[in-house]
Amino acid sequence: MARILGIDPGSQRTGVGIIDVDATGRTVHVHHQPLMLLGEGDFAGRLKRLLLGLAAIIEEYRPDEVAIEQVFMSRNPDSALKLGQARGAAISAVVLRDLPVHEYAATEIKLAVVGKGGADKVQVQHMVGVMLNLKGKLQADAADALAVAITHAHVRATAQRLGVGTRVAWGRK
Amino acid sequence: MARILGIDPGSQRTGVGIIDVDATGRTVHVHHQPLMLLGEGDFAGRLKRLLLGLAAIIEEYRPDEVAIEQVFMSRNPDSALKLGQARGAAISAVVLRDLPVHEYAATEIKLAVVGKGGADKVQVQHMVGVMLNLKGKLQADAADALAVAITHAHVRATAQRLGVGTRVAWGRK
Repeated sequence: MARILGIDPGSQRTGVGIIDVDATGRTVHVHHQPLMLLGEGDFAGRLKRLLLGLAAIIEEYRPDEVAIEQVFMSRNPDSALKLGQARGAAISAVVLRDLPVHEYAATEIKLAVVGKGGADKVQVQHMVGVMLNLKGKLQADAADALAVAITHAHVRATAQRLGVGTRVAWGRK
Repeated sequence: MARILGIDPGSQRTGVGIIDVDATGRTVHVHHQPLMLLGEGDFAGRLKRLLLGLAAIIEEYRPDEVAIEQVFMSRNPDSALKLGQARGAAISAVVLRDLPVHEYAATEIKLAVVGKGGADKVQVQHMVGVMLNLKGKLQADAADALAVAITHAHVRATAQRLGVGTRVAWGRK
């Protein structure tokens, strides 16, 4: 059994999703929540809330591995900068705890969760809910965070079945 | 007397400069160094080195306040994202220590150091060396980091003379 933390960093809010996966690849929902970057306070204060919020979640749920979506490349440099700052703070919280980070492209995640790389957000939200037996509509950031965690869970289970390692991970060597 | 840490975050390397300033605004060089983001290891590993490197510098030199250059807006989203990630990790190291952060635009820094907002990099490097009595040629990132620290030292001394606070700072409330 392994616990996987999925992170979907955004310039306005960061989605966080945690699942457990067993050796067969079966996944169980543990937790999900958004971490807001908007709202009260100046920019550094908000970045601090993201950093400490994520550190507290790691402390509470003690994930074994982390999965994060590869960056969706914005055409707007201002958005890219804001997203980069949020991503830098989120990765900071993870590497401070020495957790290995695995990165997946959006198309890989859609393929793993919906079965087709061109799936839309609504399909991802729906399938994440079905796969994790969740009632009600998932918020999009939480669905994306759970989706990248599910993707890593599947890649991980397949790698274990085949007796090979998962792709090169960041972080712990 | 106050110790000021200046940071010039970059996608490839981050300049760090530390000066002391007394009540009259007189500045004394304490330390400068680059923190490399390039080189060995994967992306998260490099971001971790930046985060821990800056945390170690803060631990060793114990600055009272931090000054950081406002972002130079790139036209390239990919560069903006990388710069944002480095900036997010650098700010993470600072806010973890609860240090107040002051932000200055490039034109304000050039005005404070060279006397004209349109000064070029070479002039900034030269004037920082003169103002801090440094021998030899300063590396550009270190010069920029020391320049933003000098800018804050001057703004701070002027504000103290006038009996007013410096501009709204991030961080500590």
